[in-house]
Amino acid sequence: MDFFDKENEVIDDLEFKGLKIIQKKSGFKFGIDAVLLSDFAKEIKKNSDVIDIGTGTGIISILLCGKTNLKTITGIEIQKEMYELAVRNSKLNKLEDRFKVIDTNINDIKKYLEYGRYDAVVTNPPYKKLDTGLKNDNINKLISRHEVACNLEDIIEKSSKLLKNNGEFYMIHRTERLVDIIELLRKYRLEPKKIKLVYPYIDKEPNLVLVKAVKNGKPFLIMDKPLIVYKDKNQYTEEILKIYNKI
Amino acid sequence: MDFFDKENEVIDDLEFKGLKIIQKKSGFKFGIDAVLLSDFAKEIKKNSDVIDIGTGTGIISILLCGKTNLKTITGIEIQKEMYELAVRNSKLNKLEDRFKVIDTNINDIKKYLEYGRYDAVVTNPPYKKLDTGLKNDNINKLISRHEVACNLEDIIEKSSKLLKNNGEFYMIHRTERLVDIIELLRKYRLEPKKIKLVYPYIDKEPNLVLVKAVKNGKPFLIMDKPLIVYKDKNQYTEEILKIYNKI
Repeated sequence: MDFFDKENEVIDDLEFKGLKIIQKKSGFKFGIDAVLLSDFAKEIKKNSDVIDIGTGTGIISILLCGKTNLKTITGIEIQKEMYELAVRNSKLNKLEDRFKVIDTNINDIKKYLEYGRYDAVVTNPPYKKLDTGLKNDNINKLISRHEVACNLEDIIEKSSKLLKNNGEFYMIHRTERLVDIIELLRKYRLEPKKIKLVYPYIDKEPNLVLVKAVKNGKPFLIMDKPLIVYKDKNQYTEEILKIYNKI
Repeated sequence: MDFFDKENEVIDDLEFKGLKIIQKKSGFKFGIDAVLLSDFAKEIKKNSDVIDIGTGTGIISILLCGKTNLKTITGIEIQKEMYELAVRNSKLNKLEDRFKVIDTNINDIKKYLEYGRYDAVVTNPPYKKLDTGLKNDNINKLISRHEVACNLEDIIEKSSKLLKNNGEFYMIHRTERLVDIIELLRKYRLEPKKIKLVYPYIDKEPNLVLVKAVKNGKPFLIMDKPLIVYKDKNQYTEEILKIYNKI
């Protein structure tokens, strides 16, 4: 395969419907959050046109192509190098007709896509505010993890604009941002309909939150069952194993 | 005891520091939510002046007098009959100097109390919107459970006004209202600092949420460990037994 850089990249088998993913050896690798989000968003309806904001390697889009009968998914990726990787991952999985990628900042999306047209948005955004936490030396990791290029409000605002009425928004984020998330979703008329907390252990604080919101939806929140990741040190719970087995 | 109506009331022993509570046989009896809220709010500081909005029988105020070194706690109760019961419960527990009760709608509280003066507010408000769910025949139960006399926004607004800068707000409510709660807290400058979800069983949806907010606090949310009520049918978890043992 000529478009694969053996020295700096690896191809991982997703062990699901023959899907594979190229990742940078030294870059940001997909983690459990991508797996959980694509499981959470698997209720996306048949024939949906979907947007994946901050697609990175394309992992979430590729998993959703396997898990759902979506028509198209468009990845938005600001980092040129990651954008190219996502394009290669689409090709590698023969998904060119369903998974396309645009190399842009989400704040410039109006140049490329029509507002009010999409059925769903999925996003696993950078978690950290620009003024918090240690910065990472690697620029790719920095942009993937910190709100350098766009912040939470940008993502939520643009998601609302891209979605059609009753369109669905799926996000995974850190629990410490939950208050901001809820306030911003309401501000941009994305009504939170389902919230699921991810607890690393049954007796520990949750660290991740999955949120589903609906554009102009009626207020009615379902707090979902808890998702517990480990039962013992490094030993996944049945539920996580089940999610990984059918990623 | 002359102020106890044997025919229509019972005296329950709280099995904690000799505290007791008179309850109506046919009225609203305190439940696990009062016990969980008083446990959650037990970090109220020494010498605090506290408000208990919708005190009912006074259960939360009485428990907090036992659990904390608060200076005073003022119960607000709109129902004359419940107000009188709370006064008797204060007397029964010899707490007249610490636990006083005012018979008013929270919306008229300015006639009785000074704004910006209190260190903490605790509240276990009516859970249901006036337009939802079956109405109850018993008028006491109706007012205790439905937003007849005041709604969530009234309670949050008045709490913010009563609190001093950095004053603490503690509430238990149903999870389905979490989005409204967070939006309203931010609206009235009560910053959510800690949220704890109560799950009836480990594999079930949470039904109650405990929220701590701080007036004019800096945004930083701690999502707390989960609280799981039952391990088996009707069998409390160790954590709940521990909370009940030292209610």
